[in-house]
Amino acid sequence: MPLVRISLMEGKSTQYKQSIADGVHRAMVETIAIPSDNHFQIITEHRREDLLYDAGYLGVERSDDIVMIQITLGSWRNAEQKKALYRAIAANLAQRPGLRIQDVLIALVENERIDWSFGNGEAQYVK
Amino acid sequence: MPLVRISLMEGKSTQYKQSIADGVHRAMVETIAIPSDNHFQIITEHRREDLLYDAGYLGVERSDDIVMIQITLGSWRNAEQKKALYRAIAANLAQRPGLRIQDVLIALVENERIDWSFGNGEAQYVK
Amino acid sequence: MPLVRISLMEGKSTQYKQSIADGVHRAMVETIAIPSDNHFQIITEHRREDLLYDAGYLGVERSDDIVMIQITLGSWRNAEQKKALYRAIAANLAQRPGLRIQDVLIALVENERIDWSFGNGEAQYVK
Repeated sequence: MPLVRISLMEGKSTQYKQSIADGVHRAMVETIAIPSDNHFQIITEHRREDLLYDAGYLGVERSDDIVMIQITLGSWRNAEQKKALYRAIAANLAQRPGLRIQDVLIALVENERIDWSFGNGEAQYVK
Repeated sequence: MPLVRISLMEGKSTQYKQSIADGVHRAMVETIAIPSDNHFQIITEHRREDLLYDAGYLGVERSDDIVMIQITLGSWRNAEQKKALYRAIAANLAQRPGLRIQDVLIALVENERIDWSFGNGEAQYVK
Repeated sequence: MPLVRISLMEGKSTQYKQSIADGVHRAMVETIAIPSDNHFQIITEHRREDLLYDAGYLGVERSDDIVMIQITLGSWRNAEQKKALYRAIAANLAQRPGLRIQDVLIALVENERIDWSFGNGEAQYVK
């Protein structure tokens, strides 16, 4: 169910982007019980002038390797699960492709079971 | 009011994309009482490597023709209206441009009347 | 915290886009108490065929200079703050880059403090 939007600077390799997508997905499987085949992600690359970030907000030193990850997901996760999710995403992306954890920005947007259709015009998460 | 984001693989014709946009919009008019002139959509095309989907989640056989549709809309629709919306979008896109209904993925995100400004710096949906 | 997505027609100059990004950010600082270094924005340019809008919905005469601004932000603003935000964004963009205020469309999506990680795998807005 989560729909994941990953935004980063242009010019990275396919493998680099794939590592990010994989790391975000594995973190969701590990920490918030997403089935491994529940995998839907949109990656977009942006010019430097179009991806604007503050390099020091909250004391976190960000760089042009910043990755902005917006996840639309069901509302049934608690605070502990979300914290574990953030830690796991950062750790995974630090391992591959080797991101600095300062460069991992995450925002969640929640919805409900009735708000998803996974094909066939059906609302599969409700009866 | 709905703001519709339609994401699909690159390389489709203008007419193909237009058919998708039309079909989504007509479905909203028909099922959730959107005025026909309440029409705001953003279509983005993506490389295969940047639009990631599982080809079998929940038993739905998806293909590279997948279309991911994210709709931000007011919270005042009920479950029956949303189910009718999903059915109508899938049926419309099956008719034109001829999509397989398995390839139609929809996610809704809700907000409130105060969360919209349609120009002039005004919040037109509230007094 | 707000994550701002700004969508407009392709072909504008870097300075034009920068003025829009600046104007939206300043409006948030002025009206909803966003720290000036809380600055995260994604600008995307679109072909005419991919950015669909109604030219008259609610009596507002829009043009191809339309800018669609989607802001994901914390839920702790009230209606008066949001109205002030809309007025300020429109006024700022009218001043620079000189947009018609009819062409400024804004949609807000809310989330909670736990829904943000600003780097380091931490949820900085909660204890």
